[in-house]
Amino acid sequence: MSSELEASPFKPEEAIDLSHHLSALAKARQTSPLKGLFRYWGRPGLISLAGGLPSPAYFPFSDISANVLLANSFPVEREQDSSSFSWLWKLLGGAKERTTSVTIPKYSTRPEDLNLATWTGMSKGLPQLQKIVQEFSDKVYDPGYKNYQTLLHAGNTDGWSKVVITICNPGEGVLVSKWTYPSAMAAMQPYNIKPVPVDIDGQGMRSDALRTILTEWDAEARGMPRPRVIYAVPIGENPTGTTTRVARKKEIYQICVEDDPYFVLQEGTYVPKSQRARHGQAPAAGPDDEKKFIESLEPSYLKFDYQGRVIRLDTFSKTIAPGCRLGWYTCNPLFAERLERASETSTQQPCGFGQSLVTATLLEWGYEGYIRWLKALRLQYTMRRDFFVDCLAEEFQLTVAPGLTGSMWEGSQVYHGFAKPQRSLTGYFNEKTPTMSNRLFSFVPPTSGMFLKVHFDQHPSFATLGAESLEMKLWIEIAEAGVLFGPGAMFSPTGDWTSETSGHYRISFSNLENDEMKKAVEIFGKTLRKFMGAL
Amino acid sequence: MSSELEASPFKPEEAIDLSHHLSALAKARQTSPLKGLFRYWGRPGLISLAGGLPSPAYFPFSDISANVLLANSFPVEREQDSSSFSWLWKLLGGAKERTTSVTIPKYSTRPEDLNLATWTGMSKGLPQLQKIVQEFSDKVYDPGYKNYQTLLHAGNTDGWSKVVITICNPGEGVLVSKWTYPSAMAAMQPYNIKPVPVDIDGQGMRSDALRTILTEWDAEARGMPRPRVIYAVPIGENPTGTTTRVARKKEIYQICVEDDPYFVLQEGTYVPKSQRARHGQAPAAGPDDEKKFIESLEPSYLKFDYQGRVIRLDTFSKTIAPGCRLGWYTCNPLFAERLERASETSTQQPCGFGQSLVTATLLEWGYEGYIRWLKALRLQYTMRRDFFVDCLAEEFQLTVAPGLTGSMWEGSQVYHGFAKPQRSLTGYFNEKTPTMSNRLFSFVPPTSGMFLKVHFDQHPSFATLGAESLEMKLWIEIAEAGVLFGPGAMFSPTGDWTSETSGHYRISFSNLENDEMKKAVEIFGKTLRKFMGAL
Repeated sequence: MSSELEASPFKPEEAIDLSHHLSALAKARQTSPLKGLFRYWGRPGLISLAGGLPSPAYFPFSDISANVLLANSFPVEREQDSSSFSWLWKLLGGAKERTTSVTIPKYSTRPEDLNLATWTGMSKGLPQLQKIVQEFSDKVYDPGYKNYQTLLHAGNTDGWSKVVITICNPGEGVLVSKWTYPSAMAAMQPYNIKPVPVDIDGQGMRSDALRTILTEWDAEARGMPRPRVIYAVPIGENPTGTTTRVARKKEIYQICVEDDPYFVLQEGTYVPKSQRARHGQAPAAGPDDEKKFIESLEPSYLKFDYQGRVIRLDTFSKTIAPGCRLGWYTCNPLFAERLERASETSTQQPCGFGQSLVTATLLEWGYEGYIRWLKALRLQYTMRRDFFVDCLAEEFQLTVAPGLTGSMWEGSQVYHGFAKPQRSLTGYFNEKTPTMSNRLFSFVPPTSGMFLKVHFDQHPSFATLGAESLEMKLWIEIAEAGVLFGPGAMFSPTGDWTSETSGHYRISFSNLENDEMKKAVEIFGKTLRKFMGAL
Repeated sequence: MSSELEASPFKPEEAIDLSHHLSALAKARQTSPLKGLFRYWGRPGLISLAGGLPSPAYFPFSDISANVLLANSFPVEREQDSSSFSWLWKLLGGAKERTTSVTIPKYSTRPEDLNLATWTGMSKGLPQLQKIVQEFSDKVYDPGYKNYQTLLHAGNTDGWSKVVITICNPGEGVLVSKWTYPSAMAAMQPYNIKPVPVDIDGQGMRSDALRTILTEWDAEARGMPRPRVIYAVPIGENPTGTTTRVARKKEIYQICVEDDPYFVLQEGTYVPKSQRARHGQAPAAGPDDEKKFIESLEPSYLKFDYQGRVIRLDTFSKTIAPGCRLGWYTCNPLFAERLERASETSTQQPCGFGQSLVTATLLEWGYEGYIRWLKALRLQYTMRRDFFVDCLAEEFQLTVAPGLTGSMWEGSQVYHGFAKPQRSLTGYFNEKTPTMSNRLFSFVPPTSGMFLKVHFDQHPSFATLGAESLEMKLWIEIAEAGVLFGPGAMFSPTGDWTSETSGHYRISFSNLENDEMKKAVEIFGKTLRKFMGAL
């Protein structure tokens, strides 16, 4: 897509007028903190007495280093036993990890090499890392226009909070999925920027619902102007785990902030254990060639962005280490400049230790090595997802059916959980035929974490206690039994409570080993069956 | 001071009402993002499926490590040659640095030990680092009330920007020194929070000027309510290098944000080279005992803060490494809670790599070692400051006189620079007697960097060109000759241009080696004399 547009770089003055999408706050930011200094700043040979930085002679670190796993530490294809046990064993137990050492010295012999002495004062971040993320956005997202920019931020939460105050004014609304990431909503709240929920289906935000909201918008009745901004988590949205596909993305394409920490972890469809052997290698493992791997992933909104409408947020949290607080924007130069000014008066730059170590690792691996690492990572999480669903299939009787039209699961294969027939000394009991009316819970096998709905209308006291109270009671009982779920209500952007929205729990298993998953599902099963009177 | 108050911890409801100092933005922040989760979050033995963090098994880092200088790497007393040359030689050249290695493994055997696997999800930061900064604030600042809190932030610029939106509303004013740190002003600008400059003298902000402004405040004429907040840089204020002493601090004590990156680097008074031998050990070296060292420093505003009015910003930028983006607040629990919420929706937590490495270093050194390190650091910067002023004394004829009453240098010893008598083949010329009327420039020997005023009224074209134009012309000529100064106008909070404020340059030498300082002063001397027609 970008090839045909490469000759026509994005120019705000020729394309749509993006400047009116800047908030008053963003417009009021200073033009550049260096003012007249720019002319001479960084000129080689100049003795600078303008900066005021401490002398690197007094940094206590002579060097920092790390032992880093090789890029091919994990397999990209499922092994015969279809679990990650053997790899975990190698990693945690007996077998030696295969690592390589990276070191960043305080002073480098060549100025362009990584060093600790020249870390600072660069709100754009390390030049080497800038180059790496630019190459990644270029090759992996292949944006629909040429002169997009990349800019480091301190993790997607930081990235989003700066975007909010860059493109939204107080009192305005932001279009969001009906279930979405609560911290993103919390960042808007103090500025009185309100979430406007849009109905979802198995692909996340519905384009038809979006169109209806926008065309029928009544500013007076709503108490706010028609929203100009969409907050989208198109891959593995938290909590629902939904993924928006190409056709839908093209429909939604608009001024859109794409918060996409899970892009490279797209896990594909869950295939029940019994059928996985027939499928041979899992679909999630993907082709071995790096270009084919990228083509196997749902593309970013950037790919269709020929007008510079998309601000994409990327993070190293899901692929390197969550506490590193390091990620990047990909967006048009107008927005990038305003976001850089926002960084200068807040975070300044991501931590130099983190930048150095991540950069040294990525330089050591190279682009191909990083893609290889990501491919394997996706398989690991896919196997965890599969194992978790396998556990549910053992603990309950699962049936599968297409999601109902008009429901949040339209377009997905929905799994329904029933109490298994119990065997007593004298025979079976509780041999209800699985029907929609005696389901205990439903879910769609997701990316990363999943959003499970318990059918409290099956509870004996539903009429008297109501769904809200039952949801809280069950959550506490599960916690008291030793397993902590995320309460669904946290993920409702407006905190609305309806019979349709009630009964949800967010279940994240990305950080659990198989034995913990198995134990958690057993506890959940026991507690749920008892709670629902389905023993 | 704190001992008598220790029995009466600060309680907002009993002391002054601090809650009305919270901005509308701060009040609108969510109460806690974890909501109901709090009850069970982190309970030992619970299997948590509520979080959603990646598995540490897939962090590519097996361990990170660093070679760290020993805490006693630098001397705390001046050596005979009174320069840092010998130490620099050891550091950069022949002699081997004395270092120790610190390593943070991915997994630790004891959960309370530093490790990479449990870095994340802690917006308060690493518990070990929390403990260290709490101990530091306790022992070094000795706050005037008991239940103050410390909270990590991502560097003082980040810390201040969060404070701005926590205690200021749009349209309000913040009291600042007449010359102050421009990035702090830039953080206020988009929110339409306006700097209200207060006259300064040799100790920084004047308490009498402050009182006059506040008592005579006319909200209508000023277009804003009477300010409630002071932004203070009490030690080595940028750009003036002034330090506020105890009596003044007690007068100013108020709701006050204390941005104090230079606290431990207080360099004491400059003593001319010729007199330093007589003084024996430099005053800056300070006593060897850690408690005496702390007592030798001007205390923090916290020391007099018995009502929880002060938010202190500390940073590791000046003492460990500037790019680490790591520091901490010390303030009352009410403000700390709101600031923590602000972190959760932006930076979340400082980078885990940086936290781990700084923490491991401080644990390795211990509190006494860190104080030992700081003491030596202060001496190193003092020697650089002394060497720089020595260079000026060689390049120019310097005289010293008390600052004029009512001027920004009242209470300081001001150095005035004159062209040295030049020797020709036939004798001396240019033998003007140094008087105020033929000074080229003036300055006060500062902490860290200094603010030098050139007397453009001595320039032959002063009447026709004016000070503003001459200031810019000289700045360019110095830059073209190879030395970059900070233009003074950058540091004017309101950008006012008067004959009193004109002619200033900020000169920072903290990051220069002696030979560079010498060269810079020679270039400055040559350029200035030529420019001023004083050859």
